[in-house]
Amino acid sequence: MPEAAHPHGTALTDEELRTLDAHWRAANYLAAGQIYLMANPLLTEPLRPEHIKPRLLGHWGTSPGLNLVYTHLNRVIKARDLDALCIWGPGHGGPSVLANSWLEGSYSETYPDVTRDGPGMATLFRQFSFPGGVPSHVAPEVPGSIHEGGELGYSLAHAYGAAFDHPDLLVACVIGDGEAETGPLAASWHSNKFLDPVHDGAVLPILHLNGYKIANPTVLSRLPESELDALLRGYGHEPIHVTGDDPLQVHRDMARALDDALDRIALLQRTAREEDVPERPHWPMIVLRTPKGWTGPAEVDGVPVEGTWRAHQVPLPGVRENPQHLRQLEAWLKSYRPQELFDADGHPRPEVLAQVPDGDRRLGATPYANGGLLVRDLPMPALEDFAVPVDKPGATLHEPTRVLGGFLEQIMEDTTARRDFRLVGPDETASNRLQAVFEASGKAWQARILPVDEHLDRHGRVLEILSEHLCQGWLEGYLLTGRHGLFSCYEAFVHIVDSMVNQHIKWLRTARELAWRAPVASLNYLLTSHVWRQDHNGFSHQDPGFVDHVLNKSPEVVRVYLPPDANTLLSVADHALRSRDYVNVIVAGKQPCFDWLSMDQARVHCARGAGIWDWAGTENGGEPDVVLACAGDVPTQEVLAAAQLLRRHLPQLAVRVVNVVDMTRLMPHEDHPHGMTDFEYDGLFTTDKPVIFAYHGYPWLIHRLAYRRTGHPHLHVRGYKESGTTTTPFDMVVRNDLDRYRLVMDVIDRVPGLAVRAAAVRQQMADARTRHHDWIRAHGTDLPEVAEWTWSS
Amino acid sequence: MPEAAHPHGTALTDEELRTLDAHWRAANYLAAGQIYLMANPLLTEPLRPEHIKPRLLGHWGTSPGLNLVYTHLNRVIKARDLDALCIWGPGHGGPSVLANSWLEGSYSETYPDVTRDGPGMATLFRQFSFPGGVPSHVAPEVPGSIHEGGELGYSLAHAYGAAFDHPDLLVACVIGDGEAETGPLAASWHSNKFLDPVHDGAVLPILHLNGYKIANPTVLSRLPESELDALLRGYGHEPIHVTGDDPLQVHRDMARALDDALDRIALLQRTAREEDVPERPHWPMIVLRTPKGWTGPAEVDGVPVEGTWRAHQVPLPGVRENPQHLRQLEAWLKSYRPQELFDADGHPRPEVLAQVPDGDRRLGATPYANGGLLVRDLPMPALEDFAVPVDKPGATLHEPTRVLGGFLEQIMEDTTARRDFRLVGPDETASNRLQAVFEASGKAWQARILPVDEHLDRHGRVLEILSEHLCQGWLEGYLLTGRHGLFSCYEAFVHIVDSMVNQHIKWLRTARELAWRAPVASLNYLLTSHVWRQDHNGFSHQDPGFVDHVLNKSPEVVRVYLPPDANTLLSVADHALRSRDYVNVIVAGKQPCFDWLSMDQARVHCARGAGIWDWAGTENGGEPDVVLACAGDVPTQEVLAAAQLLRRHLPQLAVRVVNVVDMTRLMPHEDHPHGMTDFEYDGLFTTDKPVIFAYHGYPWLIHRLAYRRTGHPHLHVRGYKESGTTTTPFDMVVRNDLDRYRLVMDVIDRVPGLAVRAAAVRQQMADARTRHHDWIRAHGTDLPEVAEWTWSS
Repeated sequence: MPEAAHPHGTALTDEELRTLDAHWRAANYLAAGQIYLMANPLLTEPLRPEHIKPRLLGHWGTSPGLNLVYTHLNRVIKARDLDALCIWGPGHGGPSVLANSWLEGSYSETYPDVTRDGPGMATLFRQFSFPGGVPSHVAPEVPGSIHEGGELGYSLAHAYGAAFDHPDLLVACVIGDGEAETGPLAASWHSNKFLDPVHDGAVLPILHLNGYKIANPTVLSRLPESELDALLRGYGHEPIHVTGDDPLQVHRDMARALDDALDRIALLQRTAREEDVPERPHWPMIVLRTPKGWTGPAEVDGVPVEGTWRAHQVPLPGVRENPQHLRQLEAWLKSYRPQELFDADGHPRPEVLAQVPDGDRRLGATPYANGGLLVRDLPMPALEDFAVPVDKPGATLHEPTRVLGGFLEQIMEDTTARRDFRLVGPDETASNRLQAVFEASGKAWQARILPVDEHLDRHGRVLEILSEHLCQGWLEGYLLTGRHGLFSCYEAFVHIVDSMVNQHIKWLRTARELAWRAPVASLNYLLTSHVWRQDHNGFSHQDPGFVDHVLNKSPEVVRVYLPPDANTLLSVADHALRSRDYVNVIVAGKQPCFDWLSMDQARVHCARGAGIWDWAGTENGGEPDVVLACAGDVPTQEVLAAAQLLRRHLPQLAVRVVNVVDMTRLMPHEDHPHGMTDFEYDGLFTTDKPVIFAYHGYPWLIHRLAYRRTGHPHLHVRGYKESGTTTTPFDMVVRNDLDRYRLVMDVIDRVPGLAVRAAAVRQQMADARTRHHDWIRAHGTDLPEVAEWTWSS
Repeated sequence: MPEAAHPHGTALTDEELRTLDAHWRAANYLAAGQIYLMANPLLTEPLRPEHIKPRLLGHWGTSPGLNLVYTHLNRVIKARDLDALCIWGPGHGGPSVLANSWLEGSYSETYPDVTRDGPGMATLFRQFSFPGGVPSHVAPEVPGSIHEGGELGYSLAHAYGAAFDHPDLLVACVIGDGEAETGPLAASWHSNKFLDPVHDGAVLPILHLNGYKIANPTVLSRLPESELDALLRGYGHEPIHVTGDDPLQVHRDMARALDDALDRIALLQRTAREEDVPERPHWPMIVLRTPKGWTGPAEVDGVPVEGTWRAHQVPLPGVRENPQHLRQLEAWLKSYRPQELFDADGHPRPEVLAQVPDGDRRLGATPYANGGLLVRDLPMPALEDFAVPVDKPGATLHEPTRVLGGFLEQIMEDTTARRDFRLVGPDETASNRLQAVFEASGKAWQARILPVDEHLDRHGRVLEILSEHLCQGWLEGYLLTGRHGLFSCYEAFVHIVDSMVNQHIKWLRTARELAWRAPVASLNYLLTSHVWRQDHNGFSHQDPGFVDHVLNKSPEVVRVYLPPDANTLLSVADHALRSRDYVNVIVAGKQPCFDWLSMDQARVHCARGAGIWDWAGTENGGEPDVVLACAGDVPTQEVLAAAQLLRRHLPQLAVRVVNVVDMTRLMPHEDHPHGMTDFEYDGLFTTDKPVIFAYHGYPWLIHRLAYRRTGHPHLHVRGYKESGTTTTPFDMVVRNDLDRYRLVMDVIDRVPGLAVRAAAVRQQMADARTRHHDWIRAHGTDLPEVAEWTWSS
């Protein structure tokens, strides 16, 4: 970051103070105007009820504080010629960020119909929280935003994600004191142990203590100052405190605090970069304590509002009906002296804009907040270099994620100089068998390193912390600012970020509709250590429901893949890492798994998303008697074992084996872009033959996807039905009726006329299950015939 | 808590030291034995491969530390005659807690087949992580546990939940330094701002820094000591540090630390209770820094293991095959000198048990960890006292949650002395219109209180913090220790605790199967501020998917209710608060909603879970032409408006209106205890008539529940399809095709022969939708015909 190129390290000039305050007042005026006004934006006539919106929606309380920060960031960005991005944690402060973007001109450049003049101001006001207009949060529609803040808690993680591998960037992050009570935010403070002062940019947390949430004081604002200070120092920061309610004094203090913080950051960066000292910097941060709803109505109907939780949303709720409130609103708006701030045509006057930076330096115009402008295609290695050789199906075993690890290592290696690829995970990269990547990059770590440690690296690009929230938040910030990554996670525990992925999907869905937002790299999950192989962790580690969760969300964005072996995993991962604007969920095992497809076959199969495995079935060209379908590595193995049993015991039966990699292929064509037409679906699954479907997760998901298909009445699904514990792999499938023997019994039960003919075979299968139960009780291991099973046709 | 009735505030006697160490060694021996041995438990013969389990599973790394804590808690419990409970955050330490429970005898009392002698020890060893045996975590099967710790992060929240309203209880809480990196745990430290020293018990956090996670050092263990100390003081604690690897010295230091902590707690409690000082206590806590895998193999195959992450799971993995490992294991086990600890029959020797407390004081026998033994039925008020009068349907409006607020106020009032009912929520009790409860109890708050604050109360029983994780964790701890409560939450943001509710459901499912665990009060959610009424918050606040998430889980435990009005909400809430061992999800609006049913009708309707609303339909006793079904308050209103339109425009059409309150009624009888038989289902929905189902959430959920029904091909569902923004209530239903006009069009499209006959009506409906679009763009409000609509038959 450029160092103090400013002549005012200690005190603002009167002129600076005047213009900063003018900008702040203008932003406050515009924020309040958005909440209340649908006409008469410049108050050129006395305020009347018909100028007021019919529904008063919006959050005033946080706005003046955000306006203060925006105003002062403008000054230092301009004075120091900084590349800066700001994360607005109190996302309800939409009116504030919109106001500032409009003032600096980035809003009108993004939305030319909202001009920077009187008519544009009228539109700005009217559209806010108005049907067909703009949302009330710092949503994707807001220029300069990568963080909506509708669901609170992720601002600081997003800020660190944006700063990683952007050495020249300053990421300011306003953290509301409400948000600061959330778990994800509380954990995020320790992100500074992962920020490399050499290759990463700086994060400047600005903890805004306005004292109240919706209806309560905040915890941090009520700590004794010494306790709060200890807490922030314990987080590894050097806090700078700015406290007050006198605007001019706060301007002076805030300017001094920002200069102080930026000077310290510049010094820490210079030291680290020139001397590469192995000591974790103690980064500065600002604690800004100003009243909630500052400069708004002090009292309404005789009770205090400014400086209390009552200022949270709309401080004067009865303006349209209550003449007293209307007069109070008018006085409030006029207290900003709009005629000094805007000329007769509604243009902001030059002194208001005196300290606003130019061009891309403006917070609403920075390309860092429109990451698609910065993202470059990853250098993708040839899959053939990592594929496992497969001459015939089921003859060899590999650990799919370990094979993927080699591929990821190469990408990590090939991005050494570019530094635009990160792997994140909650302490599980090695547990998930991706440790080959450590050959190309160590694990980011700025705290103390001991001789016994392995792969820790101050400049590493693998991020590991025992917090799925941070993994997710960091990666979101990284992707939205134009880079690539992959999150590897235990399948059950990815539910920890259910709500975060919701919000990210919503973000992408909305962003895709905005032509000015360029596509960003997809958020890619590798879910492994999955439900079927929690041999020693048991029930608490068994949950395949993330797929269900994600498939409820916008079909434009979500993709779900269940590659059945190593080469299909490579193909799917390759596709995911090349894609844009998606959330790709890949579920794949880390345990040894049969190799079914060669790399060429895998490519074709994954491109189709679902297909018939001729070599596994016994159709011989005609219509099958039954379809055995599978999705997921363990179900695929059980289906193939079942197919083998059927081939041996019921050779006359025409069995078709279908494997599904891309779950959304099962959805109707009209509901998902990958959905099969009925013609395609019927071609695979028939319209009238029994389909026994062995699925990795909750079985009813398949019904939810396929209920509109003609053949649905003949569809019978087996999957995980919440029967789990610490046990062997085969016992898990038996407990959930997904095992080969049960599948053969299902076939016999469902193919018309087979029950009688194949009664003896059915009994053999039932006997095998009994044999399993007896064996496992005695030995604690799987039946040898299962443990040593291999495929042969 | 009783004060220092012990003569040894400062130093252990040699005898105490000797017996404590004997107990610790015994526990270490038993923990290691569980991981490795399936025979020869007392090492009476040389260790051979066949004594070793075929699958070595378990977590050694954390065990010696947990054993140390258990051993020392025993001493102070006995010396001070304490009621204590311990939360074992590092839940993978199952072997340790099992070992201690077996030593103290509570295990054999709970599981009489596992006797406290040689054969019992053999069973204890063999069953661990063995198919058909016991899981590897501190799961429900473990006596004394209320916290499994499989998914990390919730220990401290559970500890506070257990301590609330248990003034005589000490809740020790061992927090692993891995877990400490999670968001929920990081947020939990501030729980001390909500702990009332007068009416609540004490929480003693013991932060166990063993330095490593699975594969990495932990963040907290690598902070400079001064920084860690500042952090913990910032959290409001007075840390006491115990550091070392010399067992005898650590015993001395740990004993001193515990005595010191308990003395301070006793003093703080006495001061608060006798003087009621309005000052938040700074509670003590212990920082215990000992090596991971302490006393285990120092090196294996030439690399360091003890004191590193390599000790996390099984330090000697090759014991069965590798004679060198086998010898090393034998030496390790013998290092505890088992012959000094157990007699020839395998009974623990008296000195091992010298400091173990008796009876219910034992950590494995405390009734606080088997809350069903303590829980009392809530005093439930008469619903009639709170019901809204309904002479005819749809004539009046009430805000359902506000009506519920009165009912909850009464329960809060009637439990003033008992203090066994809590309301939790993330700063939303008033926003969710439950504020009547504040008349009976304020909001718990131990930090500073200012004159402007309302309803804050040092002794309040409403818990509000902006963290869904803490709300959930506190409530779980509260319920599992024998009390009652309700969690009110914005519908969209309850996804934040998806993974926590998973774990709680798993806990309840398992606990129900254990005869010795008495049923506890259900975990009750009130989800409000729901998807259809996020007028000012928009897309980020719209997500009805929690129901889908919960319905994937164990049907024995989960219940989902969508009451359509105020009286049905009362009835459902009454049922939920009386129930045991369930997770009840109630979704209900806070906005004015038509009253459809009187209290008597509501009771009957809710007991049935689904029923025909004769007064709304036009059947006249015959078979209907079409069924209009609804679940949820907004869909119910739209369905009734549609029924009214049909009555007016197509009076010949026989329309049946069915309302569903209990979603699980739709499931097959075999899949859920509430599921309807086909006979019942067909009676309501017919087997062959079109059913237009207006559902509150994602429409495909209804298909997933009903796909096996005969009439399923005729089922057509409307619901939320991820089309949201900041807009009016009616615009939301139009956007998602759930509006009355669309429903009428659906009827016309689906009833055979109606399309032609009713083409004009269909066009009128389409015109109304166009009128809506035009009006909302111009006015920003809903069409007057919709805004002012009322029901009339």
